[in-house]
This record gives sequence, C-alpha cells and structure tokens, in this order.
Amino acid sequence: MNTNHDAANADPRGGKVSLVSAGPGDLELLTIKAARTLATADVLMLDDLVDPQIVSLAPLARVIRVGKRGGCRSTPQAFICRLMRRYAQRGAHVVRVKGGDALLFGRAGEEIGFLRKSGIEVVIVNGISSGFAAAAALGVSLTHRDHCRGVTFVTAHAQDHSEPDWAALAATGTTLAIYMGMDRLESLSAALLMHLPAHTPAAVVQAASQPEEARLLTTLGRLAADARHAGLGSPGVILIGAALAEAAAPALQPSLLLAEAYG
Amino acid sequence: MNTNHDAANADPRGGKVSLVSAGPGDLELLTIKAARTLATADVLMLDDLVDPQIVSLAPLARVIRVGKRGGCRSTPQAFICRLMRRYAQRGAHVVRVKGGDALLFGRAGEEIGFLRKSGIEVVIVNGISSGFAAAAALGVSLTHRDHCRGVTFVTAHAQDHSEPDWAALAATGTTLAIYMGMDRLESLSAALLMHLPAHTPAAVVQAASQPEEARLLTTLGRLAADARHAGLGSPGVILIGAALAEAAAPALQPSLLLAEAYG
Repeated sequence: MNTNHDAANADPRGGKVSLVSAGPGDLELLTIKAARTLATADVLMLDDLVDPQIVSLAPLARVIRVGKRGGCRSTPQAFICRLMRRYAQRGAHVVRVKGGDALLFGRAGEEIGFLRKSGIEVVIVNGISSGFAAAAALGVSLTHRDHCRGVTFVTAHAQDHSEPDWAALAATGTTLAIYMGMDRLESLSAALLMHLPAHTPAAVVQAASQPEEARLLTTLGRLAADARHAGLGSPGVILIGAALAEAAAPALQPSLLLAEAYG
Repeated sequence: MNTNHDAANADPRGGKVSLVSAGPGDLELLTIKAARTLATADVLMLDDLVDPQIVSLAPLARVIRVGKRGGCRSTPQAFICRLMRRYAQRGAHVVRVKGGDALLFGRAGEEIGFLRKSGIEVVIVNGISSGFAAAAALGVSLTHRDHCRGVTFVTAHAQDHSEPDWAALAATGTTLAIYMGMDRLESLSAALLMHLPAHTPAAVVQAASQPEEARLLTTLGRLAADARHAGLGSPGVILIGAALAEAAAPALQPSLLLAEAYG
C-alpha cells in the first residue's frame, strides 16, 4: 500500500478491472503483459493459490488478500465483486489476480458478468494453466498425435457436489487433465477404471513449476495408492491418458516417483 | 545471425534445445521465461504461425524458418529434428519456437522424443494457447460453472484424415475448443448438430490477441454460414458450448459479428 497513490482519491474516469492470470506459480511464467499490468495496479486482489511474491511486481498497489488460508472460509464471491466495483468506480486500476489462467476454473465468469453489468471496463490477461505446466514438468505433450487428438480439462469439484460424467470423458479418447481431484483420488480412479484399462498411463504433478514440484508417473490402476504412498496431496493436477506413455525417460513404470528418478 | 556468435563453433558441452511457446501472436503474451530464453538463443527455429517480430528478442541468433509459407510444403519433421540435434551437439542453444503452447497440437511430442533419444537436454517453456486468447477476446470464461465443468481442446485435423468422435465430445458437456477446423466448418458443424441443439452458443476467433483479431458470436446452427458471410477463415479457433452464452454484451444473437458490435 502506498498512501501517495490512494485508489480512493484517483480519477473516477480511469477506473477499470484487469483480470490477471498469475500462471502455475513460477513468476517467470507470468506473461510480459501481466507484469506490465501489475506495475500499474492501484489495488491488488490476490487469490490464495498465487505466490505472495507477486506483490513485488505491483509496488504502487494496496494489497487485499481474498483467498482462503489455513482452513478459513474463503472471502464470499459477492463481497469480492462489490469490492472490485467500489475501487473501480472510484477510478482505481484494480488488478484481480488469479492462479493459472483466469478463464479456466477461476470463477472469472461470475466476476466478468458482475462488472460488465456495472458498466466497468474489464481487461483479461491470459496465463499458463497448471495442466500445461504439469505436462512441461513431465516432458510430455498433452496431445501426442500418435495417441490422441485432444485434451480435456475438467474439475472434479462441482457446485452441486455431483460427479463428472467419467464415462463420457473416457469415451472421448482425449488426455484428461483433472483439477481439484487430489482429495478424491480413490473415488475418481475407481470411477474411471470402469471405463479405461488399469494400465492407462497416469500422472500427478504437485506444485508444477515451483521449487517444491513433485511428479508421479504411474498407471490408472495404481494411481490412488501410489499418490498416497508418495505423500502427494492437494493441490495437484492429475493427467490420464495414452499420451502420458511418452513422459520423460526412464520408461513408464508403476510406482515410479519422478521426483526421485528424473530431473 | 551474428557471426561473432556462430553456433557451429560453440562449446559442445553447452548444447541444448529449448522448446519455447510463442503464445497466440501478441508478443506481450510471451512469458518472461520465454523472453529470457530467446535472449540467449544461438539458433532460432521458427514455425510459420509465429510473429516474425519475435526475432528481435533473439539478437544473437541465427534464424531458421521451418514452417510452411505461401502454400509451400512444410519442412519435413525429420529434417527439423536432425537440424536441432546437429546444432545442439555442436554446443549451441537451439530455441525451437512454436505458436500457442508447444504441448498442445504442436508435434512437440515427436521432437522431445527424438531429442531425448539423442541424449540432448530439452527445456520446455509454456505459453498461451490460442483457445485461451480466444476466450479472452470474447470476454468469457471457458468453464463458467453455471454451464459446464470443463473444456476440451480438440484438433479437427488428424494424421489419418479421420474425424473426431463428435458424439463422445458432445456427450461430455464440456466447452469445445476446436483447432484447425476452419477449412471444414460445414462438415464439422453438421456432425455436431447430430448431437447438440442448433441454438448451442458458438463462436469463432481469428488472429486472437493480434491487431487483425476478428470475432464472431453465433449459434452452432448458423456457425458455418455466419463464418463464411463474415469472411472468417483459417487459422481460427472455434468455441462451442453453453458457456459461450456469457460472452460479451450485447446479448447473444445469431449473426452478430463482434468485430463490429463490441470493443
């Protein structure tokens, strides 16, 4: 926070909200546009999955943390929306920072809709979603053309606590990149095993692109047990599909913890 | 090309290949890591979809263009692989630049596999795939949680000229982001209309993030005719699914060419 640059006193005509994607963690994976946008922020609103060091890129900004931390409840969505609107209507450049790409599982849709209805300019800056960083960590294409013709990003967590349609997802033959699934790995694997062979290559990457990155390369049949044995938990990205067979040497083996064997 | 920095004479022990994702076009959407990697390139190998201005970020590099241009055949994949290996084995830092994210439809899989077998270090730098830039252009989340729980990136073009399993893809209920489909929009729409209602929101974004960006927001039933009428062609990203209903105001209308109505 910089009192010489108090958002509340800025020119009302200049207010806007930039929705900036922070990428998977490594600040080097921010886009140049994201870094430039952060540099002109008056108010920074940070999600919990974002590296706190990002604050150093927004030296003029008042920093507001709106993610859930340490088991606390997250800041209500409606409150976040009203706060963004309030600052923007006072003329501030509000930078709302979200992990990964804001347009994938980031609830950006609700925030964009709210701000648009309020007549506030919204600028969207893309970023690297953690599924891509996970594939980079494994040294593998998400869509190796010998194996598949696409990739599906799906969240295991839904508002209404329903399950994804695993049968339909498996039938696509696309690589599956499953977000928010680490705390239900047993049930998720069991459901997918009804539609995919147990030897289907599978991987987990935790903290992709960050110093504490951990990688597990295994099969769908062993996924839950191996992840538990390796101590992998939430948040992490789960990748499932034939394309993972091309993941970094040594060759795919059940229970191969890449954090030890590769790198 | 800088003769004081001739890759062929460099130290063999320092050779490696960096697979750098150039993003959707706007050079501001490069990551900081990509820009830093380019700055140390000895040899730059460029795909055809990459903005030629990226060369300015690699001032020391010998530039080799390996994409297809002006209807010519593309450089054979095997030749590209051997060229990368040759330079890397002579000690050069080869930067292989691919549009979007290299791990999505970029044939990175084949190149990584080849280099790994040759014992050459490969570094992967992620980027923004054009489907994300397309969503940003439309001001819409790919996965608005009121509408869906995921997004599937699929290529309409396959090695064996087969069609994607549109029935399975439609059954997932995910947003579909279809790449390399603009030259077969009629057949692709017709196939999807067997599984999805004609009023399903659909969009095309051509040259997302670039000055010549063009956006069309319509329905699946009108997609092919509207895109033809608007003069949209290849390359472009096609987005289909209920989440597109949240695309930028004014409200979704058939035949609304956003390039005129919005922005």
